[in-house]
Amino acid sequence: MTEQTEETEETRGTPAPSRRSLIGWGGAGLALGAVAAGGAVAMTRTGDDVDPAAAETGAAIPFHGERQAGIATPVQDRLHFAAFDVKTEDRAEFVQMLKDWTAAARRMTAGQAVGEGAYGGLAEAPPDDTGEALGLKPSRLTLTIGFGPSLFEKFDLAGQRPEALVELPHFSGDNLDRNRSGGDLCVQACADDPQVAVHAIRNLARIGFGKVVIKWSQLGFGKTSSTTPEEQTPRNLMGFKDGTRNIAGTETDRLKKFVWVGEKDGPEWMAGGSYLVARRIRMHIETWDRTSLQEQEDIIGRDKGEGAPVGKAKERDKPFLKAMLPDAHVRLAHPESNEGATILRRGYSFTDGTDGLGRLDAGLFFLAYQRDPRTGFIRIQRNLAIDSLNEYIQHVGSALFAVPPGVRGKDDWWGSTLFGKEA
Amino acid sequence: MTEQTEETEETRGTPAPSRRSLIGWGGAGLALGAVAAGGAVAMTRTGDDVDPAAAETGAAIPFHGERQAGIATPVQDRLHFAAFDVKTEDRAEFVQMLKDWTAAARRMTAGQAVGEGAYGGLAEAPPDDTGEALGLKPSRLTLTIGFGPSLFEKFDLAGQRPEALVELPHFSGDNLDRNRSGGDLCVQACADDPQVAVHAIRNLARIGFGKVVIKWSQLGFGKTSSTTPEEQTPRNLMGFKDGTRNIAGTETDRLKKFVWVGEKDGPEWMAGGSYLVARRIRMHIETWDRTSLQEQEDIIGRDKGEGAPVGKAKERDKPFLKAMLPDAHVRLAHPESNEGATILRRGYSFTDGTDGLGRLDAGLFFLAYQRDPRTGFIRIQRNLAIDSLNEYIQHVGSALFAVPPGVRGKDDWWGSTLFGKEA
Repeated sequence: MTEQTEETEETRGTPAPSRRSLIGWGGAGLALGAVAAGGAVAMTRTGDDVDPAAAETGAAIPFHGERQAGIATPVQDRLHFAAFDVKTEDRAEFVQMLKDWTAAARRMTAGQAVGEGAYGGLAEAPPDDTGEALGLKPSRLTLTIGFGPSLFEKFDLAGQRPEALVELPHFSGDNLDRNRSGGDLCVQACADDPQVAVHAIRNLARIGFGKVVIKWSQLGFGKTSSTTPEEQTPRNLMGFKDGTRNIAGTETDRLKKFVWVGEKDGPEWMAGGSYLVARRIRMHIETWDRTSLQEQEDIIGRDKGEGAPVGKAKERDKPFLKAMLPDAHVRLAHPESNEGATILRRGYSFTDGTDGLGRLDAGLFFLAYQRDPRTGFIRIQRNLAIDSLNEYIQHVGSALFAVPPGVRGKDDWWGSTLFGKEA
Repeated sequence: MTEQTEETEETRGTPAPSRRSLIGWGGAGLALGAVAAGGAVAMTRTGDDVDPAAAETGAAIPFHGERQAGIATPVQDRLHFAAFDVKTEDRAEFVQMLKDWTAAARRMTAGQAVGEGAYGGLAEAPPDDTGEALGLKPSRLTLTIGFGPSLFEKFDLAGQRPEALVELPHFSGDNLDRNRSGGDLCVQACADDPQVAVHAIRNLARIGFGKVVIKWSQLGFGKTSSTTPEEQTPRNLMGFKDGTRNIAGTETDRLKKFVWVGEKDGPEWMAGGSYLVARRIRMHIETWDRTSLQEQEDIIGRDKGEGAPVGKAKERDKPFLKAMLPDAHVRLAHPESNEGATILRRGYSFTDGTDGLGRLDAGLFFLAYQRDPRTGFIRIQRNLAIDSLNEYIQHVGSALFAVPPGVRGKDDWWGSTLFGKEA
């Protein structure tokens, strides 16, 4: 905890320097180094042990822990997700970048600017931090890194590729855009303030300049799944409550069974990690909006207002699947229809302007964490081949990433279990 | 005020019905009609008379007033902006759509669903409201309509086109995308919750189906200008505070002089309105981020940390323009360099994924209100031809709209001063 205290000395909330006559605007950190922060990060995160205080908007989520934050963490309101391709062939240079990323992530999640102590410092140099998050709260920012299958074709990593990190198969109805799919690595930035999430991705991209390049990125303006059942269930752009029976961040047993990679699952470096499936799902919302309420509810298998399963009164009543149509979405996606397969959903709604036909380019950026995609997303998605919802949606982007375990402390870094401490 | 009270009986905050056994999920409105709302809209808005309570996140901004909300209103955090083209040639049909839009806007800004009393009502019909904002707060939603030059080529409106509603000239450095420019009309949706803003635009597009079609739209994730000087000045994606000397929503005299169209300005139907310039400004943030702090500050004319003008100590100190370089942005844009020209800025940062070169498609969606664009934006933008900032930005979208005065009450509607009460 002393580490945390030290790290929070110059939070974004600290008043900016009143003049640049000291040592540029970077003077803030040095001049005010003795000022105590507001205690926003005065809490711990150890694996599934989610501190309720972390649900408070504006607070900081601890970066260090057995597992990466941003998975079981209460879902923040906004998302900026980026997939990167590696450009360097120099393993040492790439590892150094991962270390630099880790240092930056450690600071940004605590509400600090990138760069130790001072921004840039010298007026003659570019600032270490791009500045647009200065003055903003930590906003529960989490940064979660993942490694894509194609990364294991580089840096002599082939032998370390997890069996579970498969190439996702083609699913019925897929219409994937290569420019919105794949990636050697990814960073998921979630925060309650989108400017904080965008700032984080941008600064990581900047630190990675010459070593990695952004392949694609996605902004999500509203969460569609929650991991905190006590809060109101969010609604997706079809207007329905989403993720009612999602795994909660406090359900240690279900997390262990369905989300976290176990020590015996292999490979060793993934123990305590997870697998992330990302799917950009375009919704044909104009067509959906002209569908009758009855048909919408039949398709989903829940009523639109309350979110209750067909034939039930309350949202959280246990669904009786046989009361639903055979091709209802909830019925087909339910664990009982998939040999128990269960995934932790963490998706966001998106709206990216307009397509060439005057329709909003809108939908769901689906994110799901699981212990093994073969028995998780792939199992469920195959069962959705006959989903009546398919008439109104199309999967247009796809990626799978191996998400390593958490960064354990100040000397640890993203990917250390894969690349080795000696690198 | 009695109108307002009546209108808020079924706000989104009201619990949804627990069963659809009543009359579909639309039952909420009727069943709970007698329940009093939280008083969120218990305030008035009359022109420049901005109620400080309106700054509270989650509250409702009154829709009726001498002037449209969303101009002098304290700037909300998020934006969804849409430009529409008219498809119908039937003036009566178009006018009816404007009335339908007004009715929907009246309800949505109060935190209610579209549709009187109940959503859809009948299970056999599509719901009147798409549903994704159900349960969300009003979130200070404002909806502001504007009419583009091309609208006046339709519906025998040529004689009503304001002289001030010119075609914007080509400016130095413009690289405009036709698919992100122009439009017969526009709606600016601002709210503290982006889902509320997106929901509003989507439902207007839905109501307009067959009559209008979205030409382009833009999501803004973070405001870059404030009209409430007492709050922290927001930062744009260059990391600098923006809009420090913006017109405040409470500065009645400056609003009257620079923003609101006067009764003698003409045409009559625009009295109490304003003109909106929208410009999508792409920032070359990767290049900017590699520029030294000194150069960044020289280009802007303010320091990055505090935001103080060159040679001054505090953000709000009066700039001494001659201390800045001749091509500094603040110097060239300042009223003193433009015969007093002053505009009310209301722009937002955007990030729309990635371009084909691995760079974030990010920048500033510039929105500015003024009494006359010829002596406002056009005057200033011409002076920015030698702006040293131009090396780092590019204007890629552009539009100008005549923003009519406010909707005065329950029987009034958007555009009534232009299309006439008799229509």
